[in-house]
Amino acid sequence: MPTVVTFGEIMMRLATPGHNRFAQASHLEVTFGGGEANVAAALALSGIDAAFVTRLPQNDWGDRAIATLRGQGVDTSRIIRGDGRMGVYFLEHGAGPRASRVIYDRADSAISHIAEGDVDWSSVFAGVKWFHWTGITPALGDAAAAAVTAACKAAKSAGCTISVDLNFRKNLWTREKAQAVMTDLMPFVDVCIGNEEDAETVFSIKGADVETGSIDRNRYIDVGRQLSDRFQFKAVAITLRESISASRNGWSAMLYAQNQAYFSERYDIDIVDRVGSGDSFAAGMIYAQLQAFDPQRAVAWATAAAALKHTIPGDLNFVSPTEIARLVEGDASGRVQR
Amino acid sequence: MPTVVTFGEIMMRLATPGHNRFAQASHLEVTFGGGEANVAAALALSGIDAAFVTRLPQNDWGDRAIATLRGQGVDTSRIIRGDGRMGVYFLEHGAGPRASRVIYDRADSAISHIAEGDVDWSSVFAGVKWFHWTGITPALGDAAAAAVTAACKAAKSAGCTISVDLNFRKNLWTREKAQAVMTDLMPFVDVCIGNEEDAETVFSIKGADVETGSIDRNRYIDVGRQLSDRFQFKAVAITLRESISASRNGWSAMLYAQNQAYFSERYDIDIVDRVGSGDSFAAGMIYAQLQAFDPQRAVAWATAAAALKHTIPGDLNFVSPTEIARLVEGDASGRVQR
Amino acid sequence: MPTVVTFGEIMMRLATPGHNRFAQASHLEVTFGGGEANVAAALALSGIDAAFVTRLPQNDWGDRAIATLRGQGVDTSRIIRGDGRMGVYFLEHGAGPRASRVIYDRADSAISHIAEGDVDWSSVFAGVKWFHWTGITPALGDAAAAAVTAACKAAKSAGCTISVDLNFRKNLWTREKAQAVMTDLMPFVDVCIGNEEDAETVFSIKGADVETGSIDRNRYIDVGRQLSDRFQFKAVAITLRESISASRNGWSAMLYAQNQAYFSERYDIDIVDRVGSGDSFAAGMIYAQLQAFDPQRAVAWATAAAALKHTIPGDLNFVSPTEIARLVEGDASGRVQR
Amino acid sequence: MPTVVTFGEIMMRLATPGHNRFAQASHLEVTFGGGEANVAAALALSGIDAAFVTRLPQNDWGDRAIATLRGQGVDTSRIIRGDGRMGVYFLEHGAGPRASRVIYDRADSAISHIAEGDVDWSSVFAGVKWFHWTGITPALGDAAAAAVTAACKAAKSAGCTISVDLNFRKNLWTREKAQAVMTDLMPFVDVCIGNEEDAETVFSIKGADVETGSIDRNRYIDVGRQLSDRFQFKAVAITLRESISASRNGWSAMLYAQNQAYFSERYDIDIVDRVGSGDSFAAGMIYAQLQAFDPQRAVAWATAAAALKHTIPGDLNFVSPTEIARLVEGDASGRVQR
Amino acid sequence: MPTVVTFGEIMMRLATPGHNRFAQASHLEVTFGGGEANVAAALALSGIDAAFVTRLPQNDWGDRAIATLRGQGVDTSRIIRGDGRMGVYFLEHGAGPRASRVIYDRADSAISHIAEGDVDWSSVFAGVKWFHWTGITPALGDAAAAAVTAACKAAKSAGCTISVDLNFRKNLWTREKAQAVMTDLMPFVDVCIGNEEDAETVFSIKGADVETGSIDRNRYIDVGRQLSDRFQFKAVAITLRESISASRNGWSAMLYAQNQAYFSERYDIDIVDRVGSGDSFAAGMIYAQLQAFDPQRAVAWATAAAALKHTIPGDLNFVSPTEIARLVEGDASGRVQR
Amino acid sequence: MPTVVTFGEIMMRLATPGHNRFAQASHLEVTFGGGEANVAAALALSGIDAAFVTRLPQNDWGDRAIATLRGQGVDTSRIIRGDGRMGVYFLEHGAGPRASRVIYDRADSAISHIAEGDVDWSSVFAGVKWFHWTGITPALGDAAAAAVTAACKAAKSAGCTISVDLNFRKNLWTREKAQAVMTDLMPFVDVCIGNEEDAETVFSIKGADVETGSIDRNRYIDVGRQLSDRFQFKAVAITLRESISASRNGWSAMLYAQNQAYFSERYDIDIVDRVGSGDSFAAGMIYAQLQAFDPQRAVAWATAAAALKHTIPGDLNFVSPTEIARLVEGDASGRVQR
Repeated sequence: MPTVVTFGEIMMRLATPGHNRFAQASHLEVTFGGGEANVAAALALSGIDAAFVTRLPQNDWGDRAIATLRGQGVDTSRIIRGDGRMGVYFLEHGAGPRASRVIYDRADSAISHIAEGDVDWSSVFAGVKWFHWTGITPALGDAAAAAVTAACKAAKSAGCTISVDLNFRKNLWTREKAQAVMTDLMPFVDVCIGNEEDAETVFSIKGADVETGSIDRNRYIDVGRQLSDRFQFKAVAITLRESISASRNGWSAMLYAQNQAYFSERYDIDIVDRVGSGDSFAAGMIYAQLQAFDPQRAVAWATAAAALKHTIPGDLNFVSPTEIARLVEGDASGRVQR
Repeated sequence: MPTVVTFGEIMMRLATPGHNRFAQASHLEVTFGGGEANVAAALALSGIDAAFVTRLPQNDWGDRAIATLRGQGVDTSRIIRGDGRMGVYFLEHGAGPRASRVIYDRADSAISHIAEGDVDWSSVFAGVKWFHWTGITPALGDAAAAAVTAACKAAKSAGCTISVDLNFRKNLWTREKAQAVMTDLMPFVDVCIGNEEDAETVFSIKGADVETGSIDRNRYIDVGRQLSDRFQFKAVAITLRESISASRNGWSAMLYAQNQAYFSERYDIDIVDRVGSGDSFAAGMIYAQLQAFDPQRAVAWATAAAALKHTIPGDLNFVSPTEIARLVEGDASGRVQR
Repeated sequence: MPTVVTFGEIMMRLATPGHNRFAQASHLEVTFGGGEANVAAALALSGIDAAFVTRLPQNDWGDRAIATLRGQGVDTSRIIRGDGRMGVYFLEHGAGPRASRVIYDRADSAISHIAEGDVDWSSVFAGVKWFHWTGITPALGDAAAAAVTAACKAAKSAGCTISVDLNFRKNLWTREKAQAVMTDLMPFVDVCIGNEEDAETVFSIKGADVETGSIDRNRYIDVGRQLSDRFQFKAVAITLRESISASRNGWSAMLYAQNQAYFSERYDIDIVDRVGSGDSFAAGMIYAQLQAFDPQRAVAWATAAAALKHTIPGDLNFVSPTEIARLVEGDASGRVQR
Repeated sequence: MPTVVTFGEIMMRLATPGHNRFAQASHLEVTFGGGEANVAAALALSGIDAAFVTRLPQNDWGDRAIATLRGQGVDTSRIIRGDGRMGVYFLEHGAGPRASRVIYDRADSAISHIAEGDVDWSSVFAGVKWFHWTGITPALGDAAAAAVTAACKAAKSAGCTISVDLNFRKNLWTREKAQAVMTDLMPFVDVCIGNEEDAETVFSIKGADVETGSIDRNRYIDVGRQLSDRFQFKAVAITLRESISASRNGWSAMLYAQNQAYFSERYDIDIVDRVGSGDSFAAGMIYAQLQAFDPQRAVAWATAAAALKHTIPGDLNFVSPTEIARLVEGDASGRVQR
Repeated sequence: MPTVVTFGEIMMRLATPGHNRFAQASHLEVTFGGGEANVAAALALSGIDAAFVTRLPQNDWGDRAIATLRGQGVDTSRIIRGDGRMGVYFLEHGAGPRASRVIYDRADSAISHIAEGDVDWSSVFAGVKWFHWTGITPALGDAAAAAVTAACKAAKSAGCTISVDLNFRKNLWTREKAQAVMTDLMPFVDVCIGNEEDAETVFSIKGADVETGSIDRNRYIDVGRQLSDRFQFKAVAITLRESISASRNGWSAMLYAQNQAYFSERYDIDIVDRVGSGDSFAAGMIYAQLQAFDPQRAVAWATAAAALKHTIPGDLNFVSPTEIARLVEGDASGRVQR
Repeated sequence: MPTVVTFGEIMMRLATPGHNRFAQASHLEVTFGGGEANVAAALALSGIDAAFVTRLPQNDWGDRAIATLRGQGVDTSRIIRGDGRMGVYFLEHGAGPRASRVIYDRADSAISHIAEGDVDWSSVFAGVKWFHWTGITPALGDAAAAAVTAACKAAKSAGCTISVDLNFRKNLWTREKAQAVMTDLMPFVDVCIGNEEDAETVFSIKGADVETGSIDRNRYIDVGRQLSDRFQFKAVAITLRESISASRNGWSAMLYAQNQAYFSERYDIDIVDRVGSGDSFAAGMIYAQLQAFDPQRAVAWATAAAALKHTIPGDLNFVSPTEIARLVEGDASGRVQR
């Protein structure tokens, strides 16, 4: 019986090696990932029973996506198989002033063919405590959006806490469509995760700079408050990325809960692979809630988990709770562990 | 002004390294290929002015497909760009009793969106001597089939010799559809290339074993004769592959022209990569005709060119006319050339 | 509830790339394997519920061994963790007259520390139909041998069929020790798998050439008969490898059951990686019994499964029942599957 | 008809992977590059018709150098072939306080054998607008220097703008020889590109610090003014590299035109591969002139183009005008482009 | 006749490529290294005759460890061979806040079986000027500790200067055991190398902050003074690492000799591979003494040598004295050396 | 004091990976080799004290060539350093009917600059028993040829046995030049190694087919006899390669000594890398003479050593006497050695 269920698309990720551009790469590195799958894997790697639900094609790549997740301990028994293709995304790692690039090739993938009744949501959520999804899933098409709604209803009935990562993707849907669909889904949601830009794009919520002084903090607090007020979220987590360059980022986060804001440590990060760091944050936040961490430790934990993800190739966050805890305790020295 | 024009789809080829299966490969090797593109490249590598026509997406992979061909000397100036995705095929190399496998992921690729008028065929064929296409192109959809028809008409008007490689692909269309479409296109064709199986699948032509003795040869001759008689081909080339295993093949061919059959040498081949060998044969046959080789040398040349292709990774046949000629002259010893 | 349980050691396999010797390799390819683990994985890849039992160190390599098996669908929930190191084997691929080489570095590995009571064998075998082990496990030390005995007893009580692969390893124990230990364990065994050399080394059973004519076959039949008679095996399977060179082998097998011998097809194999092929044979034989194949099809199936394994890098047999069936039906042509 | 022609040597570049030293590398990465070839490729990648003229050996490496450039759209039809060897340069990437190292192995390369009349310069420059060369070409020997002179004369007759990148190479010629040869060639030049050190080495021009305050800027301005005054250049571009370490550089530039100095943004760069960045700057400057950018945008463009080059492996600058423009507009954040 | 002899263990080093974690790496990079072997290799690469003494298994990995050292010029003729296994260490490179990790698998390695009389120490040290060992060797077990004592006695008799690198390894022995064994060995030692943490762990020596002002420096000086006073060392070298993250370190050192402290330059380092940097420091210090550098140049030299090591993959410091000297002279710019 | 000295050129070998052509390879594998260096390394790997003499450039590649040989135990102390470049050869592995190709880039290499007196030959040969060289060395130019003469004289004075491998290289000199130079050198030679083609090219000696029956054998015997008679060789070894394809060769040899011919076993070989196999044969023959094997065992040993070399990447023959002996005893089965 899983503790957490996530639902979304897992894609084949084909990344150029090192800092090669698409124009140069003699080969592409094969891994698998996707927002909700990454969250399930991160939770499983932290020792939480997590299941991932999706629809995959009946071919070798579908098999391998499952093998990847199952290998890391994710319960894949609820995944359904069918027609459609394997979603693919191509990734080119940036450096310095050159941005990383993603070419999505996910149109007509198996999950976009999901039909009502394909998944028996009520049995999926039996005994489950937490359901997580992201704004990418309803963006995959009306069928996928309908499935998210059905899942949310079933999860709510089963007494799950529901979290969402807003994750607006402009190449999947328009801002207007996103606003309409996401607004309808928010009543199911207890914990909302996103960044300032998502809040504005999807909900037209912009932070006001209420006082002078610690300006930025107040703006984020304001975003958290507005989101909480509008959708009655129990908690809102905002990630605060400072994009200095493709090689270096500042990274921190805020958790707004019970009318109070909690800010994490800020990390200066030399980036190895930042794809999936947001998902690691979400997983860290879910982990923290399941462990009943207080809000300050919760935001510290999720932020540290995601800081570590920036240093690991691939979508998945191969870190242990021990490693996260060490960073939360303040050891960011990177000394060799023998 | 190119001497030869080919038209079809070029795909991104993602192959597992060594003999790894899809389930195992940590990376995929990136090259580009497709029947007609392979023919154009082989001709360019033999010093013939060759142009390739297709429709490619407006993204990095489309750019790179062009760069690949242009690098080898193919004229890519007639390629058009537009919407749709890059066709992809995944390749896993077999060995011994384990077959090589291909997973096609080419549905909805840019060429399937080709529209009437996208290509100005009469200007494409101005001054051109030879037009080559394969049975894969019309199988890509009605739009592509219409484009083949339009191209054939324009090529015929321009006085081109037209060759086809039958290349039936069961996952692209049904036998019935292939029969209907291909039968309509044959009147344009002068030189028909295929194997015994294609002849039967696409035209229901089966070789009869007319005499005892050198049985097989007679059966192939009969196929050649029937094809020639039915469609008034100037020449029919039949490739004769003996699949001993995924690692070893016997390889030879027959050319049927002016009511006579010419058989090539038979090669025992240790296979490195057999994908694209049929295309190398077609290119060799076109080269032989352009060089006005006699039929015996023509079939020897095309067979030798394709024998060499089996030893080269990727779709493209990186061999020089000098190397083909050496093999035609009988040196298959593989001695180190210092 | 698994259908099959296997028990033994899984090691980290570090293989030189290509045909590099240990003296040359700049890197080593990391996979995991071991006789009984390979059998469990092959069964899981064929759709059988299979569990693997072992004792692994509490470190990253132990975690990864588990991830490897779990990814392929093996039930790893019965694996115990503890002190001791990860067993390692280094592999160098031979070619032609140069033999492949293995350097074992498995002394003092975690499984050699297994203690009575570490595994609750009766709960392990609840509901299980088949138990498989090999002669390697008891050779790992007295503790491991005791665990095999305990496992056999519990399996017998649970009504399991028990199979053994004799697999004598001269660097793990002496012939005398093997004879003593294995003879004591044979009463539990229903199905015995091995080759002629194992039979002689472990049980001093040598085939007599009873008649002239098809000499070899009779010798193998005699080995099968002697083994069956001595230990009351329900079936004896003898693999017949002809080592032509490190690159090429002849491969076939005999199944002796109910006083009758059944011989498989003989395959000429170009070898990619022959390590684990015996395990694939054992898995194929177990699969065949579980599917209630008749003896002729059973030996054909197991031999074909193992023939395919020779073409796949690593210890694990990444093939599907569909692929095995195609080879059993006689298609060893290796034609490209599109 | 190309818009730009460049003339020089293209070499085979053999680089150690990652940060391996020559003493360690198990393999070397093969690409091709050289000052003027890099400029031609960068222009072609920006959509400018560019041709590269050189003399290459009649072997596979000569063929491949051509294929590399032709693939990126460079017109290679003016390249001549002949005796002599392929120039090679070996590259080892530095890091931190350890410098990158280059071992040149270009003596006796094909271009050093270039003879008067090998290239028909007047036909080369027919219809061409811009000719670019660097101080490396005349340093390759008297024959090459004579060819540069002949090329300059023909380009001038054809009405081309001529640019030079000073690029002093101490292992190719002495300072005295460089001064003599380069001074004779400067009357042909309209646009001079270099750094402060080149100006001093080749022309004994040293910047004076005329005022206190913004000291450095004034010194560079003084260098620009002196160069302009002495050789009547229409424009002088000075690149300003701050070598903090092999991993990090400050990067900016100054353009001095019509008695005025324009300074670019300064970039802090995490270096992936800085070889060829000067050539990217030159190409950006030529592009800017052809697009008639004003001086401020011109220096911004060239500097941004070169900043991006530092992040791309190999000599060639695989960037699009869109990417350069984004950086010129100020987005150096490196955010993932999806 | 070597000038320097070192004694200790050399291990097989198996490192994940790039920044892959143990959980991800498809292959491991094979090199060899160990504290005292690294010192011998660094000295040989600097042109000093250096011999390494150890005990290695009689297998291919033992052979290769020898080949590695011999290739770099180390005299390996005193190495003895025997039973036991090859010590292995697995390395995973960290980045940013994620620490590098080492999994040692060296228990029961050949050197731990070293017996009295295996090495004829008096002949080993005939004509030798310097003996170096580290705190790792006596930690390998009582036999190894006894061998260190025997070696020290023989070296002293032969008139050698003896240096030690304290190098406490908590997974090899306890602090108490280390204190006892190391304290007994110190009377043989002339030059002691370590860091502040080693001094405290092994000798309970903690630096006092005697004055305000340049606080840290005084603390280190105090450690140097205490060590010198207690053990009558001729010189104490303390390395001062600031672990900002796994990607960046500050690096400097202090040499305390004749009651005076000498501090080196401080380097900001972008780390490629920091394993073995301490050994490079020790080798640089020995080199400096053999060259009779004054204390200020000695600490500058050793610190620069080690700074360069941080940029080189593997345990060995592939740098030349020329390169070290250039950095000592102040050129840390990393400009390309052509 | 070495037992064997060889003299010649060692080159940097840059080979395409797998079966890639020069046109395709993204990287080249770096090793070092050359006829006489390969012989020295093979002897050192067999436990014979062997020294290699050459002249190498004073750069990193020269250092690395030395490190390669020294690592395998070759005495490199007699190698001299100086101006000139590192000789390079590019290698592309053939397959099936496609030949392997070598592009030499060795003109003007350091050894071609060798001057009289650079090597003190009389001290080189003090205490040495055997001197080996090949027909490549005098072909490198008059200076190298003079050095061979000087070396032969000194070796003779020192009482060495002298062996030559004829090794005619048509791209280094003409047949006429070779005949003149080699004929002058033969009086120094005791043991002559070559193939039938070399004998004809260099000495115009052709085997007569004296009787019918075992025709070929008699022809080779006749070549051996003629060579022996003409130059008073103590032994003549003729290698007999049957080039079936680039993937498969038949391999055997004949030793003609004391008027009698001894033929080896014939091996059918699946080729991994056949470059250097002739050198392995020569080394095996020298080894056999030093061990005083009888002629039949001598030819068996040398042929087996070379058969094994065909299976090993690179120029060097990484095999042990144990492995050669096993093959000589008849075990060519390639069974896994555990």
